[in-house]
Amino acid sequence: MNGVSHQKWWGWGVEGVAFNYRDKPKMAPFVLDRVGIDLGAPATPPPSFEDLDVPAPRLGEELAERLRSAVGDEHVVQADMDRVVHTYGKGLADLVRVRAGDLPRVPDVVVYPADEDQVRAVVDAVVAADAVLIPFGGGSNISGSLTPPPDEQRAVVSLDLGRMNRVLEVDEAAGLARIQAGVLGPDMEEQLVARGWTMGHQPDSFRHSTLGGWIATRSSGMQSDKYGDIADITRGLRVVQPGKVVVLRPLPSTSSGPSVREMILGSEGRMGVVTEAWVNVHRLPEHREIIAYLYPTWSAGLAAMQEISTSDAAPSVTRVSDANETAFSLSTQKKSKGISGKVSKVLFDVLRRRGWDLDAACLSYIGYEGGAEHVGRNKAIVAKIAKKHGGIKLGKGPGTLYDQKKFDTPYIRDFLLDIGGLADVSETAAPWSKLMDVYTGTVRAAQDAFARLGVKGFVMCHLSHSYHSGACLYFTFAFAPGTADVDAQLENYWAVKNAVQQSFMDTGATISHHHGVGTDHARWLEEDISAAGADVMVGLLRSVDPGRNLNPGTLLPAHREW
Amino acid sequence: MNGVSHQKWWGWGVEGVAFNYRDKPKMAPFVLDRVGIDLGAPATPPPSFEDLDVPAPRLGEELAERLRSAVGDEHVVQADMDRVVHTYGKGLADLVRVRAGDLPRVPDVVVYPADEDQVRAVVDAVVAADAVLIPFGGGSNISGSLTPPPDEQRAVVSLDLGRMNRVLEVDEAAGLARIQAGVLGPDMEEQLVARGWTMGHQPDSFRHSTLGGWIATRSSGMQSDKYGDIADITRGLRVVQPGKVVVLRPLPSTSSGPSVREMILGSEGRMGVVTEAWVNVHRLPEHREIIAYLYPTWSAGLAAMQEISTSDAAPSVTRVSDANETAFSLSTQKKSKGISGKVSKVLFDVLRRRGWDLDAACLSYIGYEGGAEHVGRNKAIVAKIAKKHGGIKLGKGPGTLYDQKKFDTPYIRDFLLDIGGLADVSETAAPWSKLMDVYTGTVRAAQDAFARLGVKGFVMCHLSHSYHSGACLYFTFAFAPGTADVDAQLENYWAVKNAVQQSFMDTGATISHHHGVGTDHARWLEEDISAAGADVMVGLLRSVDPGRNLNPGTLLPAHREW
Repeated sequence: MNGVSHQKWWGWGVEGVAFNYRDKPKMAPFVLDRVGIDLGAPATPPPSFEDLDVPAPRLGEELAERLRSAVGDEHVVQADMDRVVHTYGKGLADLVRVRAGDLPRVPDVVVYPADEDQVRAVVDAVVAADAVLIPFGGGSNISGSLTPPPDEQRAVVSLDLGRMNRVLEVDEAAGLARIQAGVLGPDMEEQLVARGWTMGHQPDSFRHSTLGGWIATRSSGMQSDKYGDIADITRGLRVVQPGKVVVLRPLPSTSSGPSVREMILGSEGRMGVVTEAWVNVHRLPEHREIIAYLYPTWSAGLAAMQEISTSDAAPSVTRVSDANETAFSLSTQKKSKGISGKVSKVLFDVLRRRGWDLDAACLSYIGYEGGAEHVGRNKAIVAKIAKKHGGIKLGKGPGTLYDQKKFDTPYIRDFLLDIGGLADVSETAAPWSKLMDVYTGTVRAAQDAFARLGVKGFVMCHLSHSYHSGACLYFTFAFAPGTADVDAQLENYWAVKNAVQQSFMDTGATISHHHGVGTDHARWLEEDISAAGADVMVGLLRSVDPGRNLNPGTLLPAHREW
Repeated sequence: MNGVSHQKWWGWGVEGVAFNYRDKPKMAPFVLDRVGIDLGAPATPPPSFEDLDVPAPRLGEELAERLRSAVGDEHVVQADMDRVVHTYGKGLADLVRVRAGDLPRVPDVVVYPADEDQVRAVVDAVVAADAVLIPFGGGSNISGSLTPPPDEQRAVVSLDLGRMNRVLEVDEAAGLARIQAGVLGPDMEEQLVARGWTMGHQPDSFRHSTLGGWIATRSSGMQSDKYGDIADITRGLRVVQPGKVVVLRPLPSTSSGPSVREMILGSEGRMGVVTEAWVNVHRLPEHREIIAYLYPTWSAGLAAMQEISTSDAAPSVTRVSDANETAFSLSTQKKSKGISGKVSKVLFDVLRRRGWDLDAACLSYIGYEGGAEHVGRNKAIVAKIAKKHGGIKLGKGPGTLYDQKKFDTPYIRDFLLDIGGLADVSETAAPWSKLMDVYTGTVRAAQDAFARLGVKGFVMCHLSHSYHSGACLYFTFAFAPGTADVDAQLENYWAVKNAVQQSFMDTGATISHHHGVGTDHARWLEEDISAAGADVMVGLLRSVDPGRNLNPGTLLPAHREW
């Protein structure tokens, strides 16, 4: 109708793409042994949309009329499917709940504006009606930023930016592009690449997330070591607020007081609606390579990553998996591809003879982009550092495979959910000096939580996104909930998830490195930025939105709402 | 008494250091010809402090008592000298006014806290008494951030952080240091270097500015291409606000909502008092080199800088002067040193024979830091780019000299002032695509202002601080005001300065790249970040400081104060 496609309502991505374990012979035994989930268990078929009990929309006729006049009748949609798709992001709890038909508060209407003027008209109409506005991009959020407060009595309007999907302008002389906020990753890159440019921003959610969503949640892509986080990439912004538009022209740097740009970044809709941004874009690199290494231990891998980050090398990707994630990765290789065939037979024998404990081995990917000489030089620096820390080079094969498959991980989670397993992720960042404490504390917190629940569970981790003073740790946990009762499943899920997040706080790490705060992480905001820091944030948000019309409930813990 | 040293009250830096033109044979003729100032004119001796009419302090006994109990009797100072030193920064207008004894509003008291607890006690006392607090670091500000509003009726307390000058901690495993905000650049680096570390932040004001001041104004050092701006370097903060302390732990990156860290950065005292910061520190580089090049034209130099910024090279310094600044630099070389002897005789003859217009030649410095191989490789990349744009390598000599003399420039301005010349600087940043427009527009704006005033004047510029999408342009202007009347001098000064700043706005550049907003640039805030952006900033500041007790008058134009 309006050309905006959505992910399937009950899971990640699009219908017809699903994870298949049968061509990965080691995977089922591994998962059964380590996670306690039988991949061969019968999968629950996707629920039928017709079975859902979708609450009727409550939308006053006056607001409805204003919305129709703002964006046109056909772009004001109250169909159940649109409303349900816009009720949740794609966190594990979101999927469990929507599959169970748990729909306490569904947006009353979804509007699809075509341009900034229409966004302004919608924002003004919503505020005039004292309704609630929730901006919606790709719907890939996994922190609870998109879900209306369950007790919200006012009308809830989901503002889908999907029609605002164009690269408007490339300033070739500056390496800047002006892009509409609603564009999805692949669509944006296609438009940029056609002109010979790339943004270089590829978060795991890339295929189903938008520029506006990246900005609103402070996203980071896997080549952030080279291209920066979205906060670095975003140079200028246009943000619709009630009755006005914040316009920040593209600047490489400025000392014009407290940074309004950095107040919009991460604001998850509470500072208004980002309609477009000026972002750094780069010429397509001549060469791009990802080289895999194997380290004898996690601490050797961490030490190597840090040494790379303080060396003269400038890689585009630095990543190392812990032993669990390494073992899991190896178990998901197809028989004939990647390192499983070559490595596990020949190399692993060699390493064993050298005294390696292969259960402790850690897989690392280091990426390079640039001219041939640059890539070669950087590879040489990294090779020396890797060797110093006992790393063994595995070559290009595994990295190429990783690069091809990197966006598929969420499908594994959905597949597990189909067969009754719960899996999710939590990620954080901390100084290098704290990373081992964050790691051991968090692994222990997850394991303790599994033990308290009396379930078998699995937790694995990788380091990615290196900075001078620290890095991101990205944890994935999975367990068989031991109950088919949805409420009990969710209770168990939150017990694990919250233990992991609490561990971040207890070990000096942050709420999140690039998934945002949402409602899921808001309870730790004061621990993260201090109570006085939360006061600053409340003061800022309240001054912009005294009536709490802009995505209320996200970012702040409930007791800090006004 | 309390060990805190200050710059001299009537000028930059310390007594006994002054600029000498007599050992630079080409300088006096150049300045007479191009700027219209006779360096041999009789210098006005520094004014006598005794001649000043310093208004008596107005400080209620209750507040005085609370301040004494907060920091100790001997650290609550009402002496005229301390109060006058804390009345102004070191902008040109500041110096003209203080030398003329123009002291409409002098702080009523200067307090020197020893630690954060004492800062808290002072802040709380000031707010309880509805007085005004102006934090003071090195006093080097040149944007008017330190001067009490002339019509301020409440007591004005200058909070000098000079006793809080220690590097408290170095986290060697993370490359982070925790440092008190009142430390001056050289003192800080001395403490860091003693432990084998450097912050790598060296703004022109380095010798007389503090960590807290850099943070409060979004400073940038000359090696920012490698080390980042102070906004990048600063990872954690402690900020005293009325009744509380904002504590931001050091994080390499975070997605915990709008960035409170980036709200403190650039806040010029209006968000509270920064007491300490966690900053990135680096191991001392093995090698450090600055190589000079000469380009045939300004546009060739600009193009080379941009190509370097998008290349695989990672220099620490990128800088190119326009023809005027190049000519001025060459005129200030001593006879026997630098490029004057060698270059102007042999090389310039060669270049002339090659058809160069030497009046258009532009001097560039490119700096490198790191391992020998890294420095060598980067030099090779840059050499190729320089050659492509017609650049001629001048070698290490000029760069070494520049490196030694870089902190002395403000003394030239003071010397000119002594003999009746007015000189000052304005700097900005913009995308690469706009830099030539910013440059030509601003040069023309200054020249038009000179013409309107009927004075001979000079404007010169360099590009420094390169980023992916743009760079900083730094303008210096000078003229003989044609009048001995101080008010008329100031009027003429503001006519030129404001024309330059207005040109930044008119050509798509920003208020300031690294000097902050203060009172001098506040009138353009709305043009820079839009009226709605200014609303956001007002909302933020007002929520923190409803009573306008924290450095009121800076950052915002008068009509935006509450």
